[in-house]
Amino acid sequence: MARWEGNTRGRLERAALDLFTKQGYDRTTVAQIAKRANLTERSFYRWFTDKREVLFGGSEELEERFLAVIEVAPEGTDPLTTLMAAFSTAPEVIRPREFLRERSAVIAANPPLQERELIKLATLSQALTAALENRGHDSQTARLATDAGMAILRLAGERWMADENADHARLLSDCAADLLAVLTADGAPTQP
Amino acid sequence: MARWEGNTRGRLERAALDLFTKQGYDRTTVAQIAKRANLTERSFYRWFTDKREVLFGGSEELEERFLAVIEVAPEGTDPLTTLMAAFSTAPEVIRPREFLRERSAVIAANPPLQERELIKLATLSQALTAALENRGHDSQTARLATDAGMAILRLAGERWMADENADHARLLSDCAADLLAVLTADGAPTQP
Repeated sequence: MARWEGNTRGRLERAALDLFTKQGYDRTTVAQIAKRANLTERSFYRWFTDKREVLFGGSEELEERFLAVIEVAPEGTDPLTTLMAAFSTAPEVIRPREFLRERSAVIAANPPLQERELIKLATLSQALTAALENRGHDSQTARLATDAGMAILRLAGERWMADENADHARLLSDCAADLLAVLTADGAPTQP
Repeated sequence: MARWEGNTRGRLERAALDLFTKQGYDRTTVAQIAKRANLTERSFYRWFTDKREVLFGGSEELEERFLAVIEVAPEGTDPLTTLMAAFSTAPEVIRPREFLRERSAVIAANPPLQERELIKLATLSQALTAALENRGHDSQTARLATDAGMAILRLAGERWMADENADHARLLSDCAADLLAVLTADGAPTQP
């Protein structure tokens, strides 16, 4: 975290989030973000293509990390177990809790950011599905496992943000159990 | 279907899809779509806010239909069963198979359409989650059930488009069973 907050990109992200929170996303300019981070607009654009993108720093690292784990999953591992192993590396890459909480609030308040987030999540989903296919899973199973996995990851992330003491790996398995409970509820149409 | 294809909106949708398929989405104008449907540009804008929107006709009806079913679900019904009952009404509202197949191909080839679709699906998800909350389910369970339900609905829709003789209700329960198999790790093993 210290490393992230100290580097150029981290400073830009922190400055942007502060301004978005204080004065609103719409009223914040790239020039203001750069100034607050004691950097130039040019350095901003070295890291981010636009103002929206600054809240999604780290999504490539997250994807890379996940894909690296999937690639080396032991043969015969079922796809959801493979995804859970990948997701358990998230705490090594994601931003600090406090940052993510503020970030969520800003995104929730701004439809253009919500759209960007949807696209980011869809891109991650596609990459995960493709990686599972590469491991020999058929495409429908790979996609279903990804959908289930992403639902679990999202809920675990929400609980993780809300609870300072929560353990991410533990939350992942709790959320997987909750999803299973939803699917096996009495009368669920899982029988023909 | 006959009714849909005969009405103004249906004619515009059909004309748009024909042109998108033949000459590409980018090179098609609203004027061309209206002309092909023997209508004016004004009638186009009476139904659709823009060119992208013409491929998403019917999404409001689908949502309305789903919400109406959820609203009258018997008390104590688990959330996924409620969603499955709602989804089973889809064939009454969705466009003909052939139309949906062509539509999928056009969307897959055009990132702006993919984005619009993501937004439409997210909007539908939010509405379903809110409707489940109104039925007394806590928000995390409502959201998990929605995520599971949307994964099932998507896969069932894919299989439905691919198979002329498939029964939508049957596909829904098959896909729910497949999702359960993914979660309990006894899905079809991909390696011997």
